[in-house]
Amino acid sequence: MTDFATALNSSAEAVNAQLKALLPAAEGPEHRLLSAMRYSTLAGGKRLRTFLVLSSADLFEVDRRYALRVAAAVELMHTYSLVHDDLPAMDDDGLRRRLPTAHIEFDEATAILSGDALLTLAFEILAEEATHARASVRYELIRSLAAAAGCRGMVAGQMIDLDFENAEVDVATITRLQQLKTGALIAFSCESGAILGQAHGSSRHALHAYAHDLGLVFQIVDDLLDAEGDVRLAHGRRPCAHAGPEAGQSSEFPSRSVRRPRRGFARCRRFRHRAAFLSAEARFLVYMGVKRRRA
Amino acid sequence: MTDFATALNSSAEAVNAQLKALLPAAEGPEHRLLSAMRYSTLAGGKRLRTFLVLSSADLFEVDRRYALRVAAAVELMHTYSLVHDDLPAMDDDGLRRRLPTAHIEFDEATAILSGDALLTLAFEILAEEATHARASVRYELIRSLAAAAGCRGMVAGQMIDLDFENAEVDVATITRLQQLKTGALIAFSCESGAILGQAHGSSRHALHAYAHDLGLVFQIVDDLLDAEGDVRLAHGRRPCAHAGPEAGQSSEFPSRSVRRPRRGFARCRRFRHRAAFLSAEARFLVYMGVKRRRA
Repeated sequence: MTDFATALNSSAEAVNAQLKALLPAAEGPEHRLLSAMRYSTLAGGKRLRTFLVLSSADLFEVDRRYALRVAAAVELMHTYSLVHDDLPAMDDDGLRRRLPTAHIEFDEATAILSGDALLTLAFEILAEEATHARASVRYELIRSLAAAAGCRGMVAGQMIDLDFENAEVDVATITRLQQLKTGALIAFSCESGAILGQAHGSSRHALHAYAHDLGLVFQIVDDLLDAEGDVRLAHGRRPCAHAGPEAGQSSEFPSRSVRRPRRGFARCRRFRHRAAFLSAEARFLVYMGVKRRRA
Repeated sequence: MTDFATALNSSAEAVNAQLKALLPAAEGPEHRLLSAMRYSTLAGGKRLRTFLVLSSADLFEVDRRYALRVAAAVELMHTYSLVHDDLPAMDDDGLRRRLPTAHIEFDEATAILSGDALLTLAFEILAEEATHARASVRYELIRSLAAAAGCRGMVAGQMIDLDFENAEVDVATITRLQQLKTGALIAFSCESGAILGQAHGSSRHALHAYAHDLGLVFQIVDDLLDAEGDVRLAHGRRPCAHAGPEAGQSSEFPSRSVRRPRRGFARCRRFRHRAAFLSAEARFLVYMGVKRRRA
Protein backbone atom coordinates (compact mmCIF):
# COMPACT_ATOMS: atom_id res chain seq x y z
CA MET A 1 0.00 0.00 0.00
CA THR A 2 1.26 3.50 -0.79
CA ASP A 3 1.80 6.05 1.94
CA PHE A 4 -1.28 7.87 0.69
CA ALA A 5 -3.48 4.76 0.84
CA THR A 6 -2.18 3.94 4.32
CA ALA A 7 -2.88 7.48 5.51
CA LEU A 8 -6.37 7.38 3.97
CA ASN A 9 -7.18 4.09 5.72
CA SER A 10 -5.77 5.17 9.03
CA SER A 11 -7.68 8.45 8.94
CA ALA A 12 -10.93 6.63 8.05
CA GLU A 13 -10.45 4.30 11.01
CA ALA A 14 -9.92 7.19 13.41
CA VAL A 15 -12.98 9.00 12.05
CA ASN A 16 -15.11 5.85 12.31
CA ALA A 17 -14.12 5.42 15.94
CA GLN A 18 -15.00 9.07 16.60
CA LEU A 19 -18.37 8.69 14.87
CA LYS A 20 -19.19 5.57 16.89
CA ALA A 21 -18.46 7.47 20.08
CA LEU A 22 -20.48 10.56 19.07
CA LEU A 23 -23.59 8.84 17.71
CA PRO A 24 -26.02 8.08 20.53
CA ALA A 25 -26.56 4.40 21.41
CA ALA A 26 -29.70 2.94 19.85
CA GLU A 27 -31.84 2.66 22.98
CA GLY A 28 -35.01 4.13 24.49
CA PRO A 29 -38.38 4.52 22.74
CA GLU A 30 -36.66 6.45 19.91
CA HIS A 31 -34.20 3.56 19.26
CA ARG A 32 -35.40 3.16 15.66
CA LEU A 33 -34.27 6.70 14.85
CA LEU A 34 -30.90 6.17 16.53
CA SER A 35 -30.41 2.80 14.80
CA ALA A 36 -31.02 4.41 11.42
CA MET A 37 -28.55 7.21 12.18
CA ARG A 38 -25.87 4.68 13.10
CA TYR A 39 -26.70 2.41 10.16
CA SER A 40 -26.25 5.07 7.49
CA THR A 41 -23.25 6.77 9.07
CA LEU A 42 -21.27 3.64 9.88
CA ALA A 43 -21.96 1.91 6.55
CA GLY A 44 -18.45 2.69 5.32
CA GLY A 45 -17.37 4.90 2.45
CA LYS A 46 -14.02 6.34 1.45
CA ARG A 47 -14.23 9.18 4.00
CA LEU A 48 -12.44 11.50 1.56
CA ARG A 49 -14.03 14.60 3.06
CA THR A 50 -12.87 13.72 6.55
CA PHE A 51 -9.39 13.02 5.20
CA LEU A 52 -9.36 16.58 3.88
CA VAL A 53 -10.38 17.91 7.30
CA LEU A 54 -7.59 16.00 9.07
CA SER A 55 -4.98 16.84 6.42
CA SER A 56 -5.79 20.53 6.41
CA ALA A 57 -5.79 20.59 10.22
CA ASP A 58 -2.32 18.98 10.17
CA LEU A 59 -1.05 21.91 8.07
CA PHE A 60 -1.71 24.15 11.06
CA GLU A 61 -0.68 21.61 13.70
CA VAL A 62 -4.18 21.48 15.15
CA ASP A 63 -4.91 19.15 18.09
CA ARG A 64 -6.07 15.89 16.51
CA ARG A 65 -8.97 15.63 18.98
CA TYR A 66 -10.43 18.87 17.63
CA ALA A 67 -9.92 17.86 14.01
CA LEU A 68 -11.60 14.48 14.53
CA ARG A 69 -14.75 16.12 15.89
CA VAL A 70 -14.93 18.49 12.91
CA ALA A 71 -14.33 15.53 10.58
CA ALA A 72 -17.20 13.68 12.28
CA ALA A 73 -19.50 16.68 11.83
CA VAL A 74 -18.62 16.84 8.11
CA GLU A 75 -19.31 13.12 7.71
CA LEU A 76 -22.68 13.42 9.47
CA MET A 77 -23.58 16.29 7.16
CA HIS A 78 -22.50 14.27 4.12
CA THR A 79 -24.41 11.19 5.33
CA TYR A 80 -27.64 13.13 5.93
CA SER A 81 -27.46 14.48 2.37
CA LEU A 82 -27.03 10.93 0.99
CA VAL A 83 -29.94 9.57 3.08
CA HIS A 84 -32.27 12.31 1.83
CA ASP A 85 -30.96 12.15 -1.77
CA ASP A 86 -31.68 8.41 -1.88
CA LEU A 87 -35.37 8.85 -0.95
CA PRO A 88 -38.01 7.74 -3.47
CA ALA A 89 -39.06 11.38 -4.01
CA MET A 90 -35.46 12.31 -4.85
CA ASP A 91 -33.04 9.92 -6.63
CA ASP A 92 -34.93 6.79 -5.50
CA ASP A 93 -31.83 4.67 -4.88
CA GLY A 94 -32.09 1.25 -3.27
CA LEU A 95 -28.39 0.71 -2.61
CA ARG A 96 -25.73 2.88 -1.00
CA ARG A 97 -22.24 1.71 -0.17
CA ARG A 98 -23.41 -1.81 -1.20
CA LEU A 99 -26.09 -1.88 1.50
CA PRO A 100 -29.84 -1.19 1.30
CA THR A 101 -30.48 2.55 1.62
CA ALA A 102 -32.03 3.81 4.87
CA HIS A 103 -35.59 3.99 3.52
CA ILE A 104 -35.31 0.36 2.35
CA GLU A 105 -33.68 -0.97 5.52
CA PHE A 106 -36.05 1.02 7.78
CA ASP A 107 -38.80 3.04 6.08
CA GLU A 108 -39.21 6.44 4.44
CA ALA A 109 -40.33 8.29 7.57
CA THR A 110 -37.37 6.94 9.56
CA ALA A 111 -35.00 7.88 6.74
CA ILE A 112 -36.32 11.45 6.63
CA LEU A 113 -36.13 11.85 10.40
CA SER A 114 -32.70 10.25 10.69
CA GLY A 115 -31.39 12.67 8.04
CA ASP A 116 -32.82 15.59 9.99
CA ALA A 117 -31.23 14.29 13.19
CA LEU A 118 -27.80 13.76 11.57
CA LEU A 119 -27.86 17.31 10.21
CA THR A 120 -28.74 18.68 13.63
CA LEU A 121 -26.13 16.55 15.39
CA ALA A 122 -23.41 17.94 13.10
CA PHE A 123 -24.07 21.43 14.46
CA GLU A 124 -24.43 20.20 18.03
CA ILE A 125 -20.98 18.59 17.87
CA LEU A 126 -19.38 21.74 16.48
CA ALA A 127 -20.99 23.88 19.20
CA GLU A 128 -19.59 21.79 22.06
CA GLU A 129 -16.51 22.96 23.92
CA ALA A 130 -14.65 19.73 23.12
CA THR A 131 -14.46 20.89 19.47
CA HIS A 132 -12.29 23.90 20.31
CA ALA A 133 -11.48 25.81 23.46
CA ARG A 134 -12.38 29.14 21.83
CA ALA A 135 -16.08 29.91 21.24
CA SER A 136 -15.12 32.18 18.32
CA VAL A 137 -13.54 29.22 16.47
CA ARG A 138 -16.59 27.05 17.08
CA TYR A 139 -18.95 29.71 15.82
CA GLU A 140 -16.86 30.23 12.68
CA LEU A 141 -16.95 26.49 12.01
CA ILE A 142 -20.74 26.49 12.42
CA ARG A 143 -21.27 29.59 10.29
CA SER A 144 -19.06 28.22 7.50
CA LEU A 145 -20.57 24.73 7.58
CA ALA A 146 -24.13 26.13 7.55
CA ALA A 147 -23.26 28.36 4.58
CA ALA A 148 -21.69 25.41 2.73
CA ALA A 149 -24.56 23.03 3.45
CA GLY A 150 -27.65 25.21 3.19
CA CYS A 151 -29.82 27.03 0.68
CA ARG A 152 -26.84 28.79 -0.91
CA GLY A 153 -24.69 25.65 -0.84
CA MET A 154 -25.24 21.90 -0.93
CA VAL A 155 -29.05 21.94 -0.76
CA ALA A 156 -29.20 24.54 -3.54
CA GLY A 157 -27.03 22.24 -5.68
CA GLN A 158 -29.44 19.37 -5.03
CA MET A 159 -32.39 21.53 -6.03
CA ILE A 160 -30.74 22.63 -9.29
CA ASP A 161 -29.76 19.01 -10.00
CA LEU A 162 -33.37 17.85 -9.63
CA ASP A 163 -34.83 20.82 -11.48
CA PHE A 164 -32.57 20.39 -14.48
CA GLU A 165 -32.85 16.61 -14.62
CA ASN A 166 -32.98 15.49 -18.26
CA ALA A 167 -32.81 19.14 -19.34
CA GLU A 168 -30.20 20.63 -21.62
CA VAL A 169 -28.10 22.98 -19.55
CA ASP A 170 -25.04 25.08 -20.26
CA VAL A 171 -21.62 24.43 -18.75
CA ALA A 172 -21.94 27.47 -16.48
CA THR A 173 -25.05 25.98 -14.84
CA ILE A 174 -23.45 22.53 -14.54
CA THR A 175 -20.38 24.09 -12.96
CA ARG A 176 -22.50 26.05 -10.49
CA LEU A 177 -24.55 22.94 -9.71
CA GLN A 178 -21.43 20.90 -8.96
CA GLN A 179 -19.76 23.66 -7.00
CA LEU A 180 -22.81 23.85 -4.77
CA LYS A 181 -23.85 20.19 -4.60
CA THR A 182 -20.46 18.77 -3.69
CA GLY A 183 -17.87 21.51 -3.97
CA ALA A 184 -19.16 23.57 -1.07
CA LEU A 185 -18.77 20.78 1.51
CA ILE A 186 -15.40 19.76 0.05
CA ALA A 187 -14.31 23.38 0.32
CA PHE A 188 -15.45 23.55 3.94
CA SER A 189 -13.54 20.33 4.67
CA CYS A 190 -10.34 21.91 3.34
CA GLU A 191 -10.90 25.25 5.04
CA SER A 192 -11.87 23.80 8.41
CA GLY A 193 -8.19 23.16 9.18
CA ALA A 194 -7.44 26.84 8.65
CA ILE A 195 -10.37 27.81 10.89
CA LEU A 196 -9.24 25.41 13.63
CA GLY A 197 -5.68 26.68 13.24
CA GLN A 198 -6.90 30.30 13.37
CA ALA A 199 -4.96 30.99 10.19
CA HIS A 200 -5.33 34.27 8.35
CA GLY A 201 -4.10 35.96 5.20
CA SER A 202 -2.26 34.09 2.49
CA SER A 203 -2.36 30.61 4.10
CA ARG A 204 -6.10 30.81 4.36
CA HIS A 205 -6.38 32.14 0.82
CA ALA A 206 -4.21 29.35 -0.62
CA LEU A 207 -6.27 26.67 1.10
CA HIS A 208 -9.46 28.32 -0.08
CA ALA A 209 -8.25 28.29 -3.69
CA TYR A 210 -7.14 24.66 -3.40
CA ALA A 211 -10.52 23.76 -1.90
CA HIS A 212 -12.37 25.47 -4.71
CA ASP A 213 -10.45 23.64 -7.44
CA LEU A 214 -10.58 20.30 -5.67
CA GLY A 215 -14.31 20.58 -5.02
CA LEU A 216 -14.99 21.10 -8.69
CA VAL A 217 -12.91 18.17 -9.89
CA PHE A 218 -14.19 15.93 -7.11
CA GLN A 219 -17.75 16.21 -8.31
CA ILE A 220 -16.76 15.84 -11.95
CA VAL A 221 -14.89 12.62 -11.20
CA ASP A 222 -17.54 11.31 -8.83
CA ASP A 223 -20.68 12.22 -10.69
CA LEU A 224 -20.23 13.64 -14.16
CA LEU A 225 -18.11 11.09 -16.00
CA ASP A 226 -20.09 7.96 -16.54
CA ALA A 227 -18.68 4.46 -17.04
CA GLU A 228 -18.25 4.97 -20.80
CA GLY A 229 -15.97 7.88 -20.11
CA ASP A 230 -17.68 10.28 -22.51
CA VAL A 231 -19.37 13.54 -21.65
CA ARG A 232 -22.80 12.00 -21.13
CA LEU A 233 -23.63 13.43 -17.76
CA ALA A 234 -25.09 11.87 -14.66
CA HIS A 235 -28.87 11.34 -14.79
CA GLY A 236 -28.75 11.50 -18.58
CA ARG A 237 -28.00 15.22 -18.56
CA ARG A 238 -25.99 16.52 -21.51
CA PRO A 239 -24.31 19.84 -21.97
CA CYS A 240 -26.31 21.77 -24.54
CA ALA A 241 -25.12 23.44 -27.72
CA HIS A 242 -24.82 26.81 -25.94
CA ALA A 243 -22.09 25.35 -23.81
CA GLY A 244 -19.50 26.00 -26.49
CA PRO A 245 -17.87 23.59 -28.93
CA GLU A 246 -15.52 21.98 -26.42
CA ALA A 247 -18.34 20.75 -24.18
CA GLY A 248 -19.53 18.25 -26.74
CA GLN A 249 -16.07 16.77 -27.37
CA SER A 250 -15.08 13.99 -25.05
CA SER A 251 -11.43 14.67 -25.63
CA GLU A 252 -11.73 18.21 -24.30
CA PHE A 253 -14.26 18.64 -21.51
CA PRO A 254 -12.96 16.21 -18.92
CA SER A 255 -9.30 16.90 -19.58
CA ARG A 256 -9.82 20.63 -19.08
CA SER A 257 -11.43 19.79 -15.76
CA VAL A 258 -8.73 17.49 -14.45
CA ARG A 259 -6.22 20.27 -14.94
CA ARG A 260 -7.79 21.91 -11.92
CA PRO A 261 -6.26 19.70 -9.20
CA ARG A 262 -2.84 20.05 -10.83
CA ARG A 263 -3.20 23.78 -10.22
CA GLY A 264 -4.59 22.75 -6.83
CA PHE A 265 -1.55 20.85 -5.67
CA ALA A 266 0.73 23.53 -7.00
CA ARG A 267 -1.08 25.73 -4.48
CA CYS A 268 -0.11 23.32 -1.70
CA ARG A 269 3.59 23.92 -2.27
CA ARG A 270 3.64 26.87 0.06
CA PHE A 271 3.00 24.42 2.91
CA ARG A 272 5.98 22.30 1.75
CA HIS A 273 6.18 18.71 3.05
CA ARG A 274 3.24 19.19 5.44
CA ALA A 275 0.89 19.37 2.44
CA ALA A 276 2.04 16.06 0.99
CA PHE A 277 -1.27 14.34 1.59
CA LEU A 278 -3.34 17.20 0.22
CA SER A 279 -1.26 17.03 -2.97
CA ALA A 280 -1.69 13.27 -2.97
CA GLU A 281 -5.45 13.64 -2.60
CA ALA A 282 -5.58 15.90 -5.66
CA ARG A 283 -3.42 13.43 -7.63
CA PHE A 284 -5.64 10.58 -6.42
CA LEU A 285 -8.70 12.35 -7.81
CA VAL A 286 -7.02 12.98 -11.16
CA TYR A 287 -6.06 9.30 -11.26
CA MET A 288 -9.62 8.21 -10.44
CA GLY A 289 -10.95 10.54 -13.13
CA VAL A 290 -8.52 9.29 -15.78
CA LYS A 291 -9.13 5.66 -14.81
CA ARG A 292 -12.91 6.06 -15.05
CA ARG A 293 -12.55 7.91 -18.32
CA ARG A 294 -10.55 5.03 -19.78
CA ALA A 295 -12.80 2.31 -18.34
CA MET B 1 -58.44 43.31 21.96
CA THR B 2 -56.78 42.46 25.27
CA ASP B 3 -53.28 43.63 26.06
CA PHE B 4 -52.12 40.04 25.61
CA ALA B 5 -53.72 39.68 22.18
CA THR B 6 -52.25 43.03 21.11
CA ALA B 7 -48.80 41.98 22.31
CA LEU B 8 -49.12 38.62 20.54
CA ASN B 9 -50.08 40.30 17.25
CA SER B 10 -47.42 42.94 17.50
CA SER B 11 -44.72 40.36 18.23
CA ALA B 12 -45.90 38.18 15.31
CA GLU B 13 -45.65 41.17 12.98
CA ALA B 14 -42.11 41.97 14.10
CA VAL B 15 -41.06 38.33 13.71
CA ASN B 16 -42.63 38.12 10.25
CA ALA B 17 -40.71 41.21 9.15
CA GLN B 18 -37.49 39.66 10.51
CA LEU B 19 -38.18 36.38 8.71
CA LYS B 20 -38.83 38.17 5.42
CA ALA B 21 -35.50 39.93 5.76
CA LEU B 22 -33.55 36.79 6.69
CA LEU B 23 -34.98 34.38 4.11
CA PRO B 24 -33.07 34.67 0.82
CA ALA B 25 -34.94 36.16 -2.14
CA ALA B 26 -36.32 33.51 -4.51
CA GLU B 27 -33.93 34.02 -7.41
CA GLY B 28 -31.17 32.17 -9.28
CA PRO B 29 -31.32 28.59 -10.58
CA GLU B 30 -32.26 27.39 -7.08
CA HIS B 31 -35.27 29.76 -6.92
CA ARG B 32 -37.71 26.85 -6.47
CA LEU B 33 -36.02 25.89 -3.20
CA LEU B 34 -36.01 29.47 -1.95
CA SER B 35 -39.67 29.98 -2.96
CA ALA B 36 -40.68 26.89 -1.00
CA MET B 37 -38.74 28.09 2.07
CA ARG B 38 -40.51 31.47 1.95
CA TYR B 39 -43.89 29.89 1.22
CA SER B 40 -43.92 27.61 4.26
CA THR B 41 -42.33 30.08 6.66
CA LEU B 42 -44.44 33.10 5.76
CA ALA B 43 -47.75 31.20 5.61
CA GLY B 44 -48.80 32.63 8.97
CA GLY B 45 -49.44 30.84 12.23
CA LYS B 46 -49.86 32.08 15.79
CA ARG B 47 -46.10 32.47 16.32
CA LEU B 48 -46.49 31.40 19.96
CA ARG B 49 -42.93 30.08 20.17
CA THR B 50 -41.47 33.34 18.95
CA PHE B 51 -43.64 35.23 21.43
CA LEU B 52 -42.03 33.17 24.18
CA VAL B 53 -38.57 34.05 22.87
CA LEU B 54 -39.34 37.78 22.85
CA SER B 55 -41.13 37.70 26.23
CA SER B 56 -38.35 35.79 27.95
CA ALA B 57 -35.76 38.10 26.39
CA ASP B 58 -37.69 41.08 27.76
CA LEU B 59 -37.32 39.65 31.28
CA PHE B 60 -33.58 40.20 30.96
CA GLU B 61 -33.83 43.46 29.00
CA VAL B 62 -32.16 41.92 25.97
CA ASP B 63 -31.65 44.06 22.85
CA ARG B 64 -34.76 43.44 20.73
CA ARG B 65 -32.62 43.01 17.58
CA TYR B 66 -30.92 39.98 19.15
CA ALA B 67 -34.20 38.49 20.38
CA LEU B 68 -35.85 38.85 16.96
CA ARG B 69 -33.06 36.87 15.28
CA VAL B 70 -33.37 34.06 17.84
CA ALA B 71 -37.15 34.13 17.40
CA ALA B 72 -36.67 33.82 13.63
CA ALA B 73 -34.33 30.83 14.10
CA VAL B 74 -36.93 29.12 16.33
CA GLU B 75 -39.67 29.74 13.76
CA LEU B 76 -37.51 28.33 10.94
CA MET B 77 -36.85 25.24 13.06
CA HIS B 78 -40.55 24.87 13.81
CA THR B 79 -41.47 25.38 10.14
CA TYR B 80 -38.98 22.77 8.90
CA SER B 81 -40.48 20.24 11.32
CA LEU B 82 -43.99 20.97 10.01
CA VAL B 83 -42.88 20.69 6.36
CA HIS B 84 -41.28 17.30 6.99
CA ASP B 85 -44.12 16.08 9.25
CA ASP B 86 -46.66 16.85 6.53
CA LEU B 87 -44.89 14.68 3.93
CA PRO B 88 -46.77 11.67 2.52
CA ALA B 89 -44.34 9.28 4.26
CA MET B 90 -45.07 10.97 7.61
CA ASP B 91 -48.49 12.45 8.51
CA ASP B 92 -49.52 12.94 4.86
CA ASP B 93 -51.28 16.26 5.39
CA GLY B 94 -52.55 18.31 2.46
CA LEU B 95 -53.30 21.52 4.33
CA ARG B 96 -51.29 23.57 6.80
CA ARG B 97 -52.35 26.97 8.08
CA ARG B 98 -55.25 26.78 5.56
CA LEU B 99 -52.87 26.55 2.60
CA PRO B 100 -51.68 23.55 0.59
CA THR B 101 -48.69 21.95 2.31
CA ALA B 102 -45.26 22.39 0.69
CA HIS B 103 -45.24 19.00 -1.05
CA ILE B 104 -48.66 19.78 -2.59
CA GLU B 105 -47.82 23.36 -3.61
CA PHE B 106 -44.37 22.35 -4.94
CA ASP B 107 -43.48 18.64 -4.85
CA GLU B 108 -42.08 16.13 -2.37
CA ALA B 109 -38.43 16.59 -3.29
CA THR B 110 -38.70 20.37 -2.95
CA ALA B 111 -40.49 19.98 0.39
CA ILE B 112 -37.74 17.68 1.73
CA LEU B 113 -34.96 19.99 0.52
CA SER B 114 -36.67 23.17 1.74
CA GLY B 115 -37.05 21.60 5.20
CA ASP B 116 -33.34 20.72 5.21
CA ALA B 117 -32.46 24.26 4.17
CA LEU B 118 -34.70 25.89 6.83
CA LEU B 119 -33.11 23.74 9.52
CA THR B 120 -29.62 24.70 8.34
CA LEU B 121 -30.55 28.40 8.07
CA ALA B 122 -31.72 28.42 11.70
CA PHE B 123 -28.19 27.52 12.83
CA GLU B 124 -26.58 29.91 10.36
CA ILE B 125 -28.59 32.81 11.76
CA LEU B 126 -27.67 31.95 15.35
CA ALA B 127 -23.97 31.72 14.44
CA GLU B 128 -23.83 35.21 12.91
CA GLU B 129 -22.46 38.09 14.94
CA ALA B 130 -25.68 40.07 14.54
CA THR B 131 -27.36 37.55 16.91
CA HIS B 132 -25.16 38.51 19.85
CA ALA B 133 -21.89 40.33 20.28
CA ARG B 134 -20.44 37.49 22.38
CA ALA B 135 -19.48 34.26 20.61
CA SER B 136 -20.05 32.33 23.85
CA VAL B 137 -23.72 33.37 23.87
CA ARG B 138 -24.16 32.38 20.24
CA TYR B 139 -22.60 28.98 20.79
CA GLU B 140 -24.81 28.34 23.82
CA LEU B 141 -27.87 29.21 21.75
CA ILE B 142 -26.75 26.80 19.03
CA ARG B 143 -25.89 24.00 21.44
CA SER B 144 -29.22 24.34 23.25
CA LEU B 145 -31.28 24.58 20.07
CA ALA B 146 -29.52 21.57 18.55
CA ALA B 147 -30.15 19.55 21.72
CA ALA B 148 -33.83 20.58 21.75
CA ALA B 149 -34.38 19.87 18.06
CA GLY B 150 -32.32 16.74 17.42
CA CYS B 151 -32.24 13.02 18.12
CA ARG B 152 -32.76 13.51 21.85
CA GLY B 153 -35.38 16.20 21.35
CA MET B 154 -37.97 17.11 18.73
CA VAL B 155 -36.96 14.52 16.11
CA ALA B 156 -36.97 11.78 18.76
CA GLY B 157 -40.52 12.84 19.69
CA GLN B 158 -41.55 12.56 16.05
CA MET B 159 -40.06 9.10 15.80
CA ILE B 160 -41.85 7.87 18.94
CA ASP B 161 -45.09 9.43 17.68
CA LEU B 162 -44.85 7.53 14.39
CA ASP B 163 -43.71 4.30 15.99
CA PHE B 164 -46.54 4.21 18.51
CA GLU B 165 -49.22 5.33 16.06
CA ASN B 166 -52.45 3.41 16.79
CA ALA B 167 -50.64 1.53 19.56
CA GLU B 168 -51.69 1.43 23.17
CA VAL B 169 -49.11 3.32 25.19
CA ASP B 170 -48.80 4.29 28.83
CA VAL B 171 -49.03 7.86 30.09
CA ALA B 172 -45.29 7.94 30.81
CA THR B 173 -44.52 7.28 27.12
CA ILE B 174 -47.11 9.84 25.97
CA THR B 175 -45.64 12.40 28.34
CA ARG B 176 -42.11 11.71 27.09
CA LEU B 177 -43.32 11.86 23.47
CA GLN B 178 -44.94 15.26 24.02
CA GLN B 179 -42.05 16.65 26.02
CA LEU B 180 -39.74 15.79 23.15
CA LYS B 181 -41.96 16.47 20.15
CA THR B 182 -43.12 19.92 21.18
CA GLY B 183 -41.95 20.58 24.71
CA ALA B 184 -38.25 20.71 23.91
CA LEU B 185 -38.57 23.57 21.38
CA ILE B 186 -41.04 25.42 23.65
CA ALA B 187 -38.55 25.04 26.48
CA PHE B 188 -35.73 26.38 24.31
CA SER B 189 -37.94 29.34 23.33
CA CYS B 190 -38.44 30.21 27.01
CA GLU B 191 -34.81 29.67 27.96
CA SER B 192 -33.35 31.56 25.03
CA GLY B 193 -34.10 34.86 26.79
CA ALA B 194 -32.03 33.74 29.76
CA ILE B 195 -29.18 32.69 27.45
CA LEU B 196 -29.28 36.02 25.60
CA GLY B 197 -29.44 37.85 28.95
CA GLN B 198 -26.54 35.76 30.28
CA ALA B 199 -28.62 34.91 33.34
CA HIS B 200 -27.48 32.34 35.85
CA GLY B 201 -28.68 30.71 39.03
CA SER B 202 -32.22 31.00 40.28
CA SER B 203 -33.58 33.16 37.40
CA ARG B 204 -32.42 30.61 34.90
CA HIS B 205 -33.78 27.77 36.99
CA ALA B 206 -37.22 29.43 37.35
CA LEU B 207 -37.49 29.99 33.61
CA HIS B 208 -36.40 26.42 32.95
CA ALA B 209 -39.13 25.07 35.26
CA TYR B 210 -41.73 27.35 33.66
CA ALA B 211 -40.61 26.21 30.21
CA HIS B 212 -40.88 22.58 31.18
CA ASP B 213 -44.45 22.92 32.48
CA LEU B 214 -45.57 25.12 29.62
CA GLY B 215 -44.11 22.79 27.00
CA LEU B 216 -46.07 19.88 28.37
CA VAL B 217 -49.41 21.66 28.49
CA PHE B 218 -48.82 23.28 25.10
CA GLN B 219 -48.65 19.94 23.38
CA ILE B 220 -51.60 18.56 25.32
CA VAL B 221 -53.75 21.52 24.30
CA ASP B 222 -52.49 21.59 20.74
CA ASP B 223 -52.43 17.92 19.93
CA LEU B 224 -53.85 15.59 22.56
CA LEU B 225 -57.36 16.88 23.26
CA ASP B 226 -59.53 16.31 20.25
CA ALA B 227 -62.67 18.23 19.30
CA GLU B 228 -64.87 16.00 21.48
CA GLY B 229 -62.85 16.97 24.49
CA ASP B 230 -62.37 13.44 25.81
CA VAL B 231 -59.09 11.60 26.27
CA ARG B 232 -59.09 10.11 22.77
CA LEU B 233 -55.62 11.06 21.64
CA ALA B 234 -54.36 12.46 18.39
CA HIS B 235 -53.97 9.89 15.58
CA GLY B 236 -56.43 7.59 17.33
CA ARG B 237 -53.93 6.79 20.08
CA ARG B 238 -55.44 5.94 23.49
CA PRO B 239 -53.80 5.63 26.84
CA CYS B 240 -53.70 1.94 27.71
CA ALA B 241 -54.89 0.20 30.85
CA HIS B 242 -51.36 0.25 32.31
CA ALA B 243 -51.55 4.01 32.44
CA GLY B 244 -53.43 3.95 35.72
CA PRO B 245 -57.10 4.55 36.42
CA GLU B 246 -57.05 8.32 35.98
CA ALA B 247 -55.85 8.14 32.38
CA GLY B 248 -59.07 6.63 31.16
CA GLN B 249 -61.30 9.23 32.83
CA SER B 250 -61.94 12.35 30.82
CA SER B 251 -62.72 14.33 33.97
CA GLU B 252 -59.25 13.67 35.38
CA PHE B 253 -56.52 13.46 32.75
CA PRO B 254 -56.85 16.86 31.08
CA SER B 255 -57.60 18.78 34.25
CA ARG B 256 -54.50 17.34 35.93
CA SER B 257 -52.54 18.56 32.96
CA VAL B 258 -53.88 22.09 32.87
CA ARG B 259 -52.80 22.54 36.45
CA ARG B 260 -49.25 22.69 35.09
CA PRO B 261 -49.33 26.22 33.65
CA ARG B 262 -50.92 27.50 36.86
CA ARG B 263 -47.80 26.28 38.63
CA GLY B 264 -45.94 27.74 35.64
CA PHE B 265 -47.17 31.27 36.08
CA ALA B 266 -46.70 31.10 39.81
CA ARG B 267 -43.05 30.56 38.87
CA CYS B 268 -43.10 33.80 36.89
CA ARG B 269 -43.91 35.87 39.97
CA ARG B 270 -40.27 36.26 40.83
CA PHE B 271 -39.93 38.44 37.72
CA ARG B 272 -42.90 40.60 38.92
CA HIS B 273 -44.58 42.82 36.32
CA ARG B 274 -41.98 42.04 33.66
CA ALA B 275 -43.35 38.48 33.41
CA ALA B 276 -46.94 39.62 32.75
CA PHE B 277 -46.99 38.27 29.22
CA LEU B 278 -45.45 34.94 30.15
CA SER B 279 -48.18 34.51 32.77
CA ALA B 280 -50.75 35.57 30.19
CA GLU B 281 -49.38 33.01 27.73
CA ALA B 282 -49.80 30.25 30.30
CA ARG B 283 -53.36 31.45 31.08
CA PHE B 284 -54.09 31.65 27.35
CA LEU B 285 -53.09 28.00 26.93
CA VAL B 286 -55.25 26.91 29.87
CA TYR B 287 -58.15 28.84 28.35
CA MET B 288 -57.61 27.20 24.94
CA GLY B 289 -57.45 23.80 26.59
CA VAL B 290 -60.63 24.32 28.60
CA LYS B 291 -62.46 25.79 25.59
CA ARG B 292 -61.50 22.84 23.38
CA ARG B 293 -62.45 20.40 26.10
CA ARG B 294 -65.91 21.97 26.35
CA ALA B 295 -66.45 22.31 22.59
